[in-house]
Amino acid sequence: MKNIYLLGATGSIGTQTLDVIRQHPDKFRLVAFSAGRNIQLTQVIIEEFQPSYVSVISEEDAKKLSHLYPAIHFGFGSEGLITVATYDEVPGDEHFVLSAVMGSVGLLPTLKAIEMRRTIGIANKETLVTAGHLVMEKAKQYGVKLLPVDSEHSAIYQCLQGEDSKAVKKLIITASGGSFRDYTREMLQNVTREQALNHPNWSMGAKITIDSASMMNKGLEVIEAHWLFDMPYDRIETILHRQSIIHSMVEFEDTSIIAHLGTPDMRIPIQFAMSYPERIDLKQAKSLNLAEVGTLEFKPMDFERFPCLKMAYDAGRMGGSCPTVLNAANEAAVDLFLRNKISFLGIEEVVYEALSAHQTITNPTLDEILEIDCDVRKNIMTKYE
Amino acid sequence: MKNIYLLGATGSIGTQTLDVIRQHPDKFRLVAFSAGRNIQLTQVIIEEFQPSYVSVISEEDAKKLSHLYPAIHFGFGSEGLITVATYDEVPGDEHFVLSAVMGSVGLLPTLKAIEMRRTIGIANKETLVTAGHLVMEKAKQYGVKLLPVDSEHSAIYQCLQGEDSKAVKKLIITASGGSFRDYTREMLQNVTREQALNHPNWSMGAKITIDSASMMNKGLEVIEAHWLFDMPYDRIETILHRQSIIHSMVEFEDTSIIAHLGTPDMRIPIQFAMSYPERIDLKQAKSLNLAEVGTLEFKPMDFERFPCLKMAYDAGRMGGSCPTVLNAANEAAVDLFLRNKISFLGIEEVVYEALSAHQTITNPTLDEILEIDCDVRKNIMTKYE
Repeated sequence: MKNIYLLGATGSIGTQTLDVIRQHPDKFRLVAFSAGRNIQLTQVIIEEFQPSYVSVISEEDAKKLSHLYPAIHFGFGSEGLITVATYDEVPGDEHFVLSAVMGSVGLLPTLKAIEMRRTIGIANKETLVTAGHLVMEKAKQYGVKLLPVDSEHSAIYQCLQGEDSKAVKKLIITASGGSFRDYTREMLQNVTREQALNHPNWSMGAKITIDSASMMNKGLEVIEAHWLFDMPYDRIETILHRQSIIHSMVEFEDTSIIAHLGTPDMRIPIQFAMSYPERIDLKQAKSLNLAEVGTLEFKPMDFERFPCLKMAYDAGRMGGSCPTVLNAANEAAVDLFLRNKISFLGIEEVVYEALSAHQTITNPTLDEILEIDCDVRKNIMTKYE
Repeated sequence: MKNIYLLGATGSIGTQTLDVIRQHPDKFRLVAFSAGRNIQLTQVIIEEFQPSYVSVISEEDAKKLSHLYPAIHFGFGSEGLITVATYDEVPGDEHFVLSAVMGSVGLLPTLKAIEMRRTIGIANKETLVTAGHLVMEKAKQYGVKLLPVDSEHSAIYQCLQGEDSKAVKKLIITASGGSFRDYTREMLQNVTREQALNHPNWSMGAKITIDSASMMNKGLEVIEAHWLFDMPYDRIETILHRQSIIHSMVEFEDTSIIAHLGTPDMRIPIQFAMSYPERIDLKQAKSLNLAEVGTLEFKPMDFERFPCLKMAYDAGRMGGSCPTVLNAANEAAVDLFLRNKISFLGIEEVVYEALSAHQTITNPTLDEILEIDCDVRKNIMTKYE
């Protein structure tokens, strides 16, 4: 029995993780989880899965839930997130932490879980983007496996199974192109929040859907891949593939390319990370029928059309504190866009301004990262609110 | 240093194998080879690679070459093929036999090489089609690895690296459709030898090019995959993919599909088998550029349009001596077609007649297989010559 500690149970990845647990009660047990603002859904999850510990956002909600479920422990805030990741009251053969919270709040719980030598599923790419060097160093130090849950990185991880990493020539990350893949720069001037949230292939949370439309998501994935697979940026390519059937690829020294294909079902990478190194039956999942799909298309990536991707590559190559700034500025900008405070193209402007104003710190400490992350957001909010 | 024993050096796979050896003189040494009727090319190979043993088709050629190269041992005929596969005069760290001869003559040398516990690269699919149960049983008995060199089977082998075979749901073999993929049955009535030999994607030998056009090649591959990967026929699918970029795929229990992609360069599977379990640089090879390719297309396989594929599935499912008959009849029929004795659609008729006339032997011995193989050919030749 594998104990599951789920950060972000009420989000899109979270609820799909619960579905995997539900299908395999003989393999997985939900021991602790954190929830967002949806208290009704939180109660449904508590009642179905009977966890031992639950963390919510506010102290008030924690107290209310405590009265309703006296047998369960409750926490809240950042402290609560850390307790979910490190909860140690339920014995189990294996311990798996899935970090599916949004944004850089995933960082501290991840670092603490690594110290507990727990295997970690990373659905929260911001953790690696903002502090990749710290996370990977700590994972190495404690001999901990980080298993990607993003479909692209899970694809790459799967393609690397049984292969020698020294024989890898390059990683090829596919991009659907997001909601605006057929829009010109001109057409992007006046797009709305609602248009941006309408992703053609994947059903995901709001933040990642906007990031897909701006192609920042692909940029964050490039930085994440750099850290997860220890790969220099000039050996990480991106390619437009609107059908999202090939989830990503690895090219080897002999020009062989190994690719992962599938339907756009996030439970595939979630379950792969949870059951790793085993591969188990994904229940109620539809097999991909390529004859039905008919056609897969590929186009070169256009960096002028998608300046966010270019900025991400640049920030990654600059290294040090630059990716932290990129990520914090992007989170703030997407939040502003979602609240109709800036336009869609305003997102790239906000990120560009933040990166331009920043003095790079070469090898930032955790405190420096947290401070930069906070400052960048504050500056942007002050300016645009 | 790996000693290479190459059956069929002057054919298409053979010369490409020599190219791999040429690029990696630090890893591979050509110790022995067999040649076809091209004595000029045989001499070129002898002079470049300085092998210790060479087998040709006729005793006369063997004698002539003996005079020219007194330091080298020569043999001929079936005996010579076996000596190539089992040649034991040159010490080496590892011994690799590549069976790239055409047709069922590859069977005996392969069985003998297995008894020497040599790793074997199988480019000769007829060996497994005609006597799969004997070859696999012997390989198991001697703990010998059979590494596929067909691009499709090499693709599947690569997709299975690091995976648990119990988690495999099905194999998906791609088919380009061959020279006549856009022809109706009616148009096939009067196609010529020259039209059939003009394969759109791959440059291969005559026999396999005709087999591609009739789709018998895919049928033989299905039977080969059945044996190599111990997979029931209802879990081996075929799909039309005219670009031949995806070389084949494996679907797993979780609906993940792992695929192998590449340019149509047979040196990729040849070198993969030779260097296995290492993956090494394939020199002078072009990387696949999917953005340049643009589009990959897939269509369901049409068994009415391609009755040879249907017959191969049926013969495989019947088992016993049926695949031997299928293969022998097909070899004879292709030979007749190449000599303009029968029409293109005559090939399927000849095979169908042979299968209909055959009384299946459930678990044929090697002698029974060789006898059936011989009888089937004789009957066909008697009737059509």
